[in-house]
Amino acid sequence: MKARVHIMLKDGVLDPQGEAVRRALGTLGFAGVDGVRQGKVIELDLTATDAAAAEEEVRRMCEALLANTVIEKYSVEII
Amino acid sequence: MKARVHIMLKDGVLDPQGEAVRRALGTLGFAGVDGVRQGKVIELDLTATDAAAAEEEVRRMCEALLANTVIEKYSVEII
Repeated sequence: MKARVHIMLKDGVLDPQGEAVRRALGTLGFAGVDGVRQGKVIELDLTATDAAAAEEEVRRMCEALLANTVIEKYSVEII
Repeated sequence: MKARVHIMLKDGVLDPQGEAVRRALGTLGFAGVDGVRQGKVIELDLTATDAAAAEEEVRRMCEALLANTVIEKYSVEII
């Protein structure tokens, strides 16, 4: 079973990396980009076979290690 | 219109960051994680209103700046 975790900075938290990408796109001539936010995606190969239990386990991983929940939000998707 | 881009290392390209996460999860007692791959997710706010044109534009951004297509693969999703 595979799980995909998206980790993004919370709304309102400054994202200098995203801002740098936005500026660079402008410099390259890509108009029409109002904002950019950059985050992480983590794909996990799990031995678990029960989707609900796997999602619960991955959420615990996010709380313990993968996300900094002070400034980051995460979402878990079982695929 | 919003677009989400996933950028992952191609299969077969060593992912030391993902490997570090896998080991750390093991150290924390999370058994049952066979493999971890870490990538980037970039969310773009676009002024474009046509989804097909927006996706084409974002693909050009990936080729020009967002992804290193020698070692990375990307996927674009209009949301």
